[in-house]
Amino acid sequence: MNDVAVVGVGLGRFGNRSDVSFREIAFEAASKAFDDAGISPKDIDFTISSIAFPEALTSQSSPAATVVDYLGLVSKGSMRVEAACASGSAAIRAGYSAIKAGLVNTVLILGVEKMNEVSPIEAIECLARASDVQLEYEPYGITFAGFYAMMARMHMSKYGTTEEDLAKVAVKNHKYGAMNEFAHLRKTISIDDVLKSRVVASPLKLYDCSPITDGAACVILSDADNARKITDTPIWLTGLGAAAEEAYFAAKSDLASVNGARQAADLAYKMAKVKPSDIDVAEVHDCFTIAELMAYEDLRFCEKGQGPSMIRDGQTEIGGKLPVNLDGGLKAKGHPIGATGVAMTVEITRQLRGECKNRQAPKAEIGLTHNVGNTGQYCFVHIYSR
Amino acid sequence: MNDVAVVGVGLGRFGNRSDVSFREIAFEAASKAFDDAGISPKDIDFTISSIAFPEALTSQSSPAATVVDYLGLVSKGSMRVEAACASGSAAIRAGYSAIKAGLVNTVLILGVEKMNEVSPIEAIECLARASDVQLEYEPYGITFAGFYAMMARMHMSKYGTTEEDLAKVAVKNHKYGAMNEFAHLRKTISIDDVLKSRVVASPLKLYDCSPITDGAACVILSDADNARKITDTPIWLTGLGAAAEEAYFAAKSDLASVNGARQAADLAYKMAKVKPSDIDVAEVHDCFTIAELMAYEDLRFCEKGQGPSMIRDGQTEIGGKLPVNLDGGLKAKGHPIGATGVAMTVEITRQLRGECKNRQAPKAEIGLTHNVGNTGQYCFVHIYSR
Repeated sequence: MNDVAVVGVGLGRFGNRSDVSFREIAFEAASKAFDDAGISPKDIDFTISSIAFPEALTSQSSPAATVVDYLGLVSKGSMRVEAACASGSAAIRAGYSAIKAGLVNTVLILGVEKMNEVSPIEAIECLARASDVQLEYEPYGITFAGFYAMMARMHMSKYGTTEEDLAKVAVKNHKYGAMNEFAHLRKTISIDDVLKSRVVASPLKLYDCSPITDGAACVILSDADNARKITDTPIWLTGLGAAAEEAYFAAKSDLASVNGARQAADLAYKMAKVKPSDIDVAEVHDCFTIAELMAYEDLRFCEKGQGPSMIRDGQTEIGGKLPVNLDGGLKAKGHPIGATGVAMTVEITRQLRGECKNRQAPKAEIGLTHNVGNTGQYCFVHIYSR
Repeated sequence: MNDVAVVGVGLGRFGNRSDVSFREIAFEAASKAFDDAGISPKDIDFTISSIAFPEALTSQSSPAATVVDYLGLVSKGSMRVEAACASGSAAIRAGYSAIKAGLVNTVLILGVEKMNEVSPIEAIECLARASDVQLEYEPYGITFAGFYAMMARMHMSKYGTTEEDLAKVAVKNHKYGAMNEFAHLRKTISIDDVLKSRVVASPLKLYDCSPITDGAACVILSDADNARKITDTPIWLTGLGAAAEEAYFAAKSDLASVNGARQAADLAYKMAKVKPSDIDVAEVHDCFTIAELMAYEDLRFCEKGQGPSMIRDGQTEIGGKLPVNLDGGLKAKGHPIGATGVAMTVEITRQLRGECKNRQAPKAEIGLTHNVGNTGQYCFVHIYSR
């Protein structure tokens, strides 16, 4: 059985990284992953870059080649994968597939995005153009804060969710982000800070939104035989699910849920032969605070409508039933689009290895990543095991 | 053994397609592939879109979601793959991997590019920015015609290749393009037409260059069990090779060869357990006429420097040793970047099924596709068998 494991991980520090170029921040992440694995570029068979919007955010088209070259991976085949905000998880899935298919033994997955190469307005427009430009962005000018605000309103209307519930997600994720040296926003905040912050798209306020972040993340995957040679602590990728839902927002069956994520989760649980209650630690896609509450429900950690009670009861903090986003999540660690899904895998790997010190989930044997592109058009759920 | 086969193929007509939108030309190709396979969107498990430059060439970021939706593939997981001009072959490889890995049974691969949504100058700039913008495009303003002109000059200097040799490639590919109802440039031309055409980057003239084309191509892949249920003529994907060479042009070891393509070919031959002389029909990456001559050599159809003698002797026409680009190639069929590699697989599938009428390669049992991104940073060679 040609199983696949994570054998090395690394991050380039998240933040406003005007101090480094695109290829340099990629190098930060990849060189750490090589050090972590104790291998070198010659050991890599194929590289998959997760970079979502190079032409809009940088002056470089098809950036994978120049980045791969800069990392010393000359002569190794490569490609780029994009699935909007879930690009990184799509790349991990593609890497798993290439190894499991027997085409290659060891794959480097590199997620990079420099969102601050353009102005915040340009970055937000680029993202907004990932909605349907013909039916949504160009006629209405809607951005993703707008879409998620409508989802939040529906959740509030159906289930009695409050703005305080949303704020609690931000407070939790900032708490852990403050402990994470790679996070963009390293400060704790209060519920009041969130509630008093500037309205972006009501009911979402500034502190309900993930920031515009530069960052890079690298994961090295290898087949079972090589993985056991490379590391004493391989982290096995045991379940993968991918699904989607309608691209046109008005066609969605339930605005208070991401149905594609529910389907992807069910596929991943089935493949890994585990239940939601078996998950010890999770990284979920909290691009906006409402998204984390919906994720609890879509991943079947609780029933629909029960997400708010999980955050109210502290169930998703360390000490609770299932700690979530202990690296600060997209909310506080930051959301450099192409790097996000890869960084989720970096964090789960470290949690399952027990390397996370003061923000370590106790007894973490099985971990999960949940990564959503757009409002559910690219949903990927992965399950990892020690 | 979970083998993978092509079970359905379709093209959206190549040309200047201002008559259709991006999603409509995608639909043209996909609906034909569904008809060809005799299956419907519900039979697809995952979709891989090959679209190279959406943000630069269209107003839509992350276009896969809207296209997948328009094709009736709602709820199916999807991702986009990009490897510059070899995006389509990278997508085929990713589809093969997902099936062979056991994640899915049937994958739809959709290649689309509308190059004429912007002006020719803007399209050429977008492509040129796939070179290293920091070391190449921005300091020197070089375009790919310039890079390939230097490669042609080196080939002429090393091996005595002439402008007439280059012209013969264009004449051959136009001959077959004229017979292909899906081709962009459907006219035969003479050697004199090529030699007298406007200089683009000496020694390359207008008719040495592939045109700026809109187009779409679709391939449906399935695992062995399903493939045999779907079709009586599965075309098996038996060999896949991927490699690369230096991104920085000045660092290349041999400007008269694409070393990455040589490596990719060797990997594909080894996996398929065939020799270059076993290939009955090939689709090669003739973005410029010199590229086709180098492809003959890099694929080991002949020794280095012998490419010109293959075209002089008519060895790559019907009736010759190994017919190449019988659909007109990039040169006459056109080169809608994301669609190109997928369209190569469409053509080889039809050739191996014996469906190509007056441009059919005789006794075609084993076929090959050769797809090169940039000047060799993304090289993919696939081998197909009846």
